[in-house]
Amino acid sequence: MLSVEEARDRILADLRPVAVEVVALAEAWGRVSAAPVHARLTQPPADVSAMDGYALRAADGAEGAELDVIGSAPAGHPFAGAVGPGQTVRIFTGSVVPAGADAILLQEDATRIGDRVRVNEAVRAARHIRRAGQDFAAGDAVVPAGRRLSARDIGLAAAANHPWLVAHRRPRVAVLATGDEIALPGEPIPPGGIVSSNSHALAALIRAAGGTPLVLPVAADDPAAIGAAADAVAGVDLLVTTGGASVGDHDLVISALSARGLNVDFWQIAMRPGKPLVFGWLGSPGAGVPMLGLPGNPVSALVCSVLFLLPALARLSGLPPAPPPVTEAVLGAAVPANDLRADHLRATLHEDPEGRLVATPFPVQDSAMLRRLALADGLVLRAPHAPALPAGAAVRVIRLDRLGV
Amino acid sequence: MLSVEEARDRILADLRPVAVEVVALAEAWGRVSAAPVHARLTQPPADVSAMDGYALRAADGAEGAELDVIGSAPAGHPFAGAVGPGQTVRIFTGSVVPAGADAILLQEDATRIGDRVRVNEAVRAARHIRRAGQDFAAGDAVVPAGRRLSARDIGLAAAANHPWLVAHRRPRVAVLATGDEIALPGEPIPPGGIVSSNSHALAALIRAAGGTPLVLPVAADDPAAIGAAADAVAGVDLLVTTGGASVGDHDLVISALSARGLNVDFWQIAMRPGKPLVFGWLGSPGAGVPMLGLPGNPVSALVCSVLFLLPALARLSGLPPAPPPVTEAVLGAAVPANDLRADHLRATLHEDPEGRLVATPFPVQDSAMLRRLALADGLVLRAPHAPALPAGAAVRVIRLDRLGV
Repeated sequence: MLSVEEARDRILADLRPVAVEVVALAEAWGRVSAAPVHARLTQPPADVSAMDGYALRAADGAEGAELDVIGSAPAGHPFAGAVGPGQTVRIFTGSVVPAGADAILLQEDATRIGDRVRVNEAVRAARHIRRAGQDFAAGDAVVPAGRRLSARDIGLAAAANHPWLVAHRRPRVAVLATGDEIALPGEPIPPGGIVSSNSHALAALIRAAGGTPLVLPVAADDPAAIGAAADAVAGVDLLVTTGGASVGDHDLVISALSARGLNVDFWQIAMRPGKPLVFGWLGSPGAGVPMLGLPGNPVSALVCSVLFLLPALARLSGLPPAPPPVTEAVLGAAVPANDLRADHLRATLHEDPEGRLVATPFPVQDSAMLRRLALADGLVLRAPHAPALPAGAAVRVIRLDRLGV
Repeated sequence: MLSVEEARDRILADLRPVAVEVVALAEAWGRVSAAPVHARLTQPPADVSAMDGYALRAADGAEGAELDVIGSAPAGHPFAGAVGPGQTVRIFTGSVVPAGADAILLQEDATRIGDRVRVNEAVRAARHIRRAGQDFAAGDAVVPAGRRLSARDIGLAAAANHPWLVAHRRPRVAVLATGDEIALPGEPIPPGGIVSSNSHALAALIRAAGGTPLVLPVAADDPAAIGAAADAVAGVDLLVTTGGASVGDHDLVISALSARGLNVDFWQIAMRPGKPLVFGWLGSPGAGVPMLGLPGNPVSALVCSVLFLLPALARLSGLPPAPPPVTEAVLGAAVPANDLRADHLRATLHEDPEGRLVATPFPVQDSAMLRRLALADGLVLRAPHAPALPAGAAVRVIRLDRLGV
């Protein structure tokens, strides 16, 4: 059996970020930048005041001095002249410091009498002046390539005068649920059948990870129906299948798609919940369409998605290959020793009075309990052969609540 | 001056969740449920096998027994007859347990010879059988109201046979940047002017929080231009303004909108960065359109958005009133004693070898440095009059990287 880490490494090995497109600044949030954003201007563009007050020559700013107010410079309306000896100009936060001036008299340190102003506290040269380029200079790479763009990045790119950004496209992911026994919600349910939860749970997960899901019609356990999916992947960046409920779960999916050009690896993974996983390429590895075959069990499918599909989506989106993010926590209840399969215990999370994150696994970890998975906040990671641990022991957790999953 | 907490409480006091709509299951991810989702069926619908093997009567399953295989029941194809004494039916994970059978012989504990099967390990009644309703029963509230719907919730609602869900609408938020000195990216920049970063940074933040931003044209520092925003808020759930760069920052916005029916509170908040904040209602409190006036400085606007706008958006989206989430961390560098204003130190975050989150504030915390804010992973919270702290001390942090901000 393969380890979780080996399987993930093999999946990520040949995946490459999808191609790029130009998107309007407003649409770029959550995308991954495909090129560094170089500032097209210098910010601040000139020396500007950091405070409301009066611009003057430092030499004129001794306590008790009085100056002539020769003008005003609201932000966006720079003073056209120069400040000479004994003169000052009314100035505001963000206003350009007028020529000749090199100091700011704070409003609260000034007394205005008509066209004159009195210095109540001596000024210091350069104080309260933001130098041109203090934030960034024209040409600076203010946002790097390969970054998931935050609201702050969007603001910074705007300030650097970019109405458009070059970003990776959203990966398009086709989702194919298979099985004679399943129906979509609201449709007639076959005898002994169940309602398919995988298609739309995976579609939501793909959306949460910044991809665009395409939910294919459910395929019956029939080679022709499953094989038709090979025709549905033109222009798609990844095909995800679930189930194929026969002995050895994926047999039907593998045989039907192999007949349509799938180069496949079938793995037994030393993990729980989940175990069988298919990965391959419709076409040549690295050039065709990658295919990830998940178990049909909804809990297994979702846990495997967190471990394998989310990293694949992040890579396709333009980020470097990486495992899902893990957080430190302490156990809220003892756990028994683990067997040879990496376990992923569904657990609730809370913060204790000392601010530590406490993970309490559900006592029953049945992979058929979707409701319990939905109630979990995280997955406690248990390595193969991990020893029994008492309550309070340190563990690592994947926070489902933070992934939108 | 008001505290951050008082200001937030006052903003949240009269905000109510926006109205509801019916959305397709696939579109419900990230929305807040407005009604509990009651299961429309029982899951599993009948007793089903948890394993591949043979269904039989426990009384017939002693080691060494041999039974007649009278049929097969793949998932989705229940066996129509009943299992009598000395009989068994081939069964698979998820298959309905046929009438008469009450035990499962695992495939790996069986030897098949033609139409007969030999028991190599004694069975136990009920073992490897998932009882009807083990996951949920028809009528159970499987997803509560008032929950931000995850991929797992979508899967659970699907399994409970719901093609549609009732959710709160996405809050529609109008964003109005004001100022003679600002231009949108790519447009002509006035003399001494800057490119507006607030409009699109706030639009991205609103999107990150599940809202729909409407970016209004930039309004010059002119009462008529600003007042026109009052006409633009029909059907909008919140108006956010930035700037109004004059003495007392918001004077122009307040006077222009007050003339158009704004009932306003203007607050000096004991915080940094930021300080002046406007909150009010265009129309009567609780019934008109709420209005939040942020500082014009981009760093102050974003920090105030995290503290006040995100909680407002969460409340409008259907969640209970709450502050932004905070995380425990330890300081990566000493910080000086704080003055009377709550401070929000821009900091990088990393995990140390023991798995603790380490927050290292930038040495210079100038509110004009948007680039530095974009490089920060979090805001270290410093209460008014907090004492100096050494490196290694415990602090609380708002993780910007987790908010999509």
